[in-house]
Amino acid sequence: MSPSTARLLISCPDAQGIIAAVASFIAEHGGNILEADQHSDPEHGEFFMRVEIESGGLGLSQENFAQAWQPVAKKYAMRWNVCWGDCIKRLAILVSKESHCLNDLLWRWKTAELRVDIPFVAGNHESLREQVDACGLPFHHIAITKDTKPQAEAALRRLLEEEAIDFIVLARYMQILSPEFVAAYPERIINIHHSFLPAFAGSKPYHQAYERGVKIIGASSHYVTAELDQGPIIAQATMPVDHRDTIDDLVRTGRDLERVVLATAVRLHVEDKILVHGNKTVVFD
Amino acid sequence: MSPSTARLLISCPDAQGIIAAVASFIAEHGGNILEADQHSDPEHGEFFMRVEIESGGLGLSQENFAQAWQPVAKKYAMRWNVCWGDCIKRLAILVSKESHCLNDLLWRWKTAELRVDIPFVAGNHESLREQVDACGLPFHHIAITKDTKPQAEAALRRLLEEEAIDFIVLARYMQILSPEFVAAYPERIINIHHSFLPAFAGSKPYHQAYERGVKIIGASSHYVTAELDQGPIIAQATMPVDHRDTIDDLVRTGRDLERVVLATAVRLHVEDKILVHGNKTVVFD
Amino acid sequence: MSPSTARLLISCPDAQGIIAAVASFIAEHGGNILEADQHSDPEHGEFFMRVEIESGGLGLSQENFAQAWQPVAKKYAMRWNVCWGDCIKRLAILVSKESHCLNDLLWRWKTAELRVDIPFVAGNHESLREQVDACGLPFHHIAITKDTKPQAEAALRRLLEEEAIDFIVLARYMQILSPEFVAAYPERIINIHHSFLPAFAGSKPYHQAYERGVKIIGASSHYVTAELDQGPIIAQATMPVDHRDTIDDLVRTGRDLERVVLATAVRLHVEDKILVHGNKTVVFD
Amino acid sequence: MSPSTARLLISCPDAQGIIAAVASFIAEHGGNILEADQHSDPEHGEFFMRVEIESGGLGLSQENFAQAWQPVAKKYAMRWNVCWGDCIKRLAILVSKESHCLNDLLWRWKTAELRVDIPFVAGNHESLREQVDACGLPFHHIAITKDTKPQAEAALRRLLEEEAIDFIVLARYMQILSPEFVAAYPERIINIHHSFLPAFAGSKPYHQAYERGVKIIGASSHYVTAELDQGPIIAQATMPVDHRDTIDDLVRTGRDLERVVLATAVRLHVEDKILVHGNKTVVFD
Repeated sequence: MSPSTARLLISCPDAQGIIAAVASFIAEHGGNILEADQHSDPEHGEFFMRVEIESGGLGLSQENFAQAWQPVAKKYAMRWNVCWGDCIKRLAILVSKESHCLNDLLWRWKTAELRVDIPFVAGNHESLREQVDACGLPFHHIAITKDTKPQAEAALRRLLEEEAIDFIVLARYMQILSPEFVAAYPERIINIHHSFLPAFAGSKPYHQAYERGVKIIGASSHYVTAELDQGPIIAQATMPVDHRDTIDDLVRTGRDLERVVLATAVRLHVEDKILVHGNKTVVFD
Repeated sequence: MSPSTARLLISCPDAQGIIAAVASFIAEHGGNILEADQHSDPEHGEFFMRVEIESGGLGLSQENFAQAWQPVAKKYAMRWNVCWGDCIKRLAILVSKESHCLNDLLWRWKTAELRVDIPFVAGNHESLREQVDACGLPFHHIAITKDTKPQAEAALRRLLEEEAIDFIVLARYMQILSPEFVAAYPERIINIHHSFLPAFAGSKPYHQAYERGVKIIGASSHYVTAELDQGPIIAQATMPVDHRDTIDDLVRTGRDLERVVLATAVRLHVEDKILVHGNKTVVFD
Repeated sequence: MSPSTARLLISCPDAQGIIAAVASFIAEHGGNILEADQHSDPEHGEFFMRVEIESGGLGLSQENFAQAWQPVAKKYAMRWNVCWGDCIKRLAILVSKESHCLNDLLWRWKTAELRVDIPFVAGNHESLREQVDACGLPFHHIAITKDTKPQAEAALRRLLEEEAIDFIVLARYMQILSPEFVAAYPERIINIHHSFLPAFAGSKPYHQAYERGVKIIGASSHYVTAELDQGPIIAQATMPVDHRDTIDDLVRTGRDLERVVLATAVRLHVEDKILVHGNKTVVFD
Repeated sequence: MSPSTARLLISCPDAQGIIAAVASFIAEHGGNILEADQHSDPEHGEFFMRVEIESGGLGLSQENFAQAWQPVAKKYAMRWNVCWGDCIKRLAILVSKESHCLNDLLWRWKTAELRVDIPFVAGNHESLREQVDACGLPFHHIAITKDTKPQAEAALRRLLEEEAIDFIVLARYMQILSPEFVAAYPERIINIHHSFLPAFAGSKPYHQAYERGVKIIGASSHYVTAELDQGPIIAQATMPVDHRDTIDDLVRTGRDLERVVLATAVRLHVEDKILVHGNKTVVFD
């Protein structure tokens, strides 16, 4: 997203004239629409819209946008959000011992494919410290045991708050966050699960897949909610496997799927292309 | 497409305010937008739009739409087209000896998945007459040799005109249409080529693929233009193959690809979801 | 499979020298190996082999093969089976109202892509009689209600026995077969389930997929066992979907997946390429 | 490959009894076959085989294997090769400025997914030195201009020889190697080309793909031969794209394809799973 753009995200009850109202508002204030996507959910009568605006000519600043927009938003009972192109999202990555997703995200960040700030990476093991150090990023070790979980989560939340973190990626973080933690970052924690959900939720999905004898394996990225592996799915992909594949082969093949699926979800989140609707996502890509 | 909808297709030079103008026009005339898709080509400064309108409440009839719309269209120098939901497209299918694409299209038509009228099927061989008869459709045998090609094409064109055919599908029709024929049906002849174009254009693509030792094969549907297999691509798909696959295996596997890719292109055309732009397509699906 | 070939399928505890023993036996009797596939399951110490032999030069007939082979089979404690190329398998297709899988199988049979005899199609509705009639095949209507299920299954089993049916395909047959019925045709009943199992087993999988908001849908073919949708999986495939897809779209897209996945499983079974091992399949393709 | 295994690769004219001869030889010398794959090319009457042997019980050492094996090899006119599990292949990576394939290979090497030694990375630019340094590997800068190409290649070849390099990976190395260079490493130089070959060979394939308006893009890894992008293809993969994708999007999406396709080819080469046959590959995976 170029600094001179803004993205407007809208959800509201479906009604006649919404697109006209939004597009006219933007045109009246001198904005140029670069991209516009809409979706009407026929089942719940809900309307979703994402507009990307060239903000250069827009006669509205970040300060007075809300006031000007308020009448339109009110008329259609919109929940809405505007993201300005010069605002870089702040991402914290949580890890355990597996390095593939972390390596992938850090590489995308270093090459500027992924446009975020990463104030820190935190791990419940020391295993990946060196990898994070090599990128010049702070690594925080926050060990977690059954007994110390409340304190560990409190320490983590302090860090997140101090660094004004916008969203969190669980890059194969093998801990279950408490409902309170999750509630503090609604639709702002992205997990990668190494199966095609809803199949094989929970632990050791490749072992489960091997036992069941499936002919495809998959990976799913989703927003974290209080229920394990049940949150709104953002992206999924699958690959064929066969009887010759051992569990180790599934794990190896799966790593290639996981990092691409996770990177896709992170990109979509960073570009403000995801709207959550109940337990589902509308993805404007 | 329900009978009470209309689809408006627009191409024009990109400019500020087009979406607002279109959406406002529809809202002012009481129409409800069911779906709207836009695309700006950053390279050529061209803008494309498709709007699907619930025409029930629309205070405009098929007769007076153009007149009311004309000022908007003129202001933005639009090429445009409106398709009314109660208008069923008339399709002629051309075949040779291979039955898989024909069988697939006829099955989709019989089960109403494909909403078209099929006034006739024509073949340059008699091979598929029985299959067409079984569906209660007329089959015309129009043999073609090098010497009789002009007469054969003339006979075919008479049939197409008599039956007021809207578009033509070459369902593995192994004849090359003359430039004059093609020019008479611009963006209205859909071909299926059994390779991932631009690889293996021309004859015997599976043999070419086998010779080259590729690890994937594909199929491509495209609008026919004067140059063989060079028209705007509508849909493509690929499948993995390996060294064990003989040419016969490629042909067999390819048949499953071809019919799905062709059916996809036909569905997109029938639903007015394709805009042609130079030698490329904008597909709003 | 050409009439002058034979296929030998073997399962036994893994041991040194099995391939040498099998290949030497064939060479000694003048057979030429066209294809050989092996698999060792590292977990259970089980060995699987499939050999396709040019039986022309083989100095063994169908009558005396078993006697000659017995010493090898006994030495390695083999379960084995030989399929002679001039033996055409006899297939019964069971249907309800959905026509897409039936249409696909019948088309493959008519064009000789699928080399089987189809003595009859049976349906618990009359809906597909015309489609079967058009192919010149007998259609048997065997209605099933809760109360008449035992009689209906008995009637069906009589038909299967009278026609010496080798294997059964449930081409979207919406009835659950009794454990007794299933036990009579072990590894000989192939079902197509319209989800990527183990996700969305049971009824209305596309509705379940829509509710969960998945980004891929799938289809799975498997051998039927006493537990619903839990049998050994033979083939699976998936396709991407998104938030714009209604349940009807999932059903339509899924039909294209289902028939290809089912046809793949049927082809593998007909070519004797599947070995069942517990609740999993070894597929030599 | 565990140190106590050996892999035997065989190509020869097809004949009766080869599998029996090979398997019997191994059994007689106390070897246990872990995996065996065969392929007969029906067109050229060529036979290919790969056998993976548990060498623990094998009563043959690396020194006397050839002598014992010679009679079998001679009888069937075999070209053959044996790779012992305790031999680690030595890989040189050549790069230019793009880091994604390099990063991917180095990560797989560091985590021991890729079991090779990497004596050095060489680049015709300095751009990737830091990335290589961070892994503790030597980086050699060998600049190439039109005028200095012979000297540059000579320097490179000295390095390759000094380090006893077994095979070379061109990880987006944007230089064309001379026929002499290529001839010195037959079937031992792996390239990644960023298109689904044979489409879009040569330079700027994503630009070519964008111009043609294809709906899929791909990547191909192949052995390098004297003709640019014409060598035997090892692995290929494709991904769907659409009209919204700019050239930059194709490049970004393509990077994810390229590195997986390249890594696959490298793994297959390292595991001795590729046999070259004319301009095609037999891949036993």
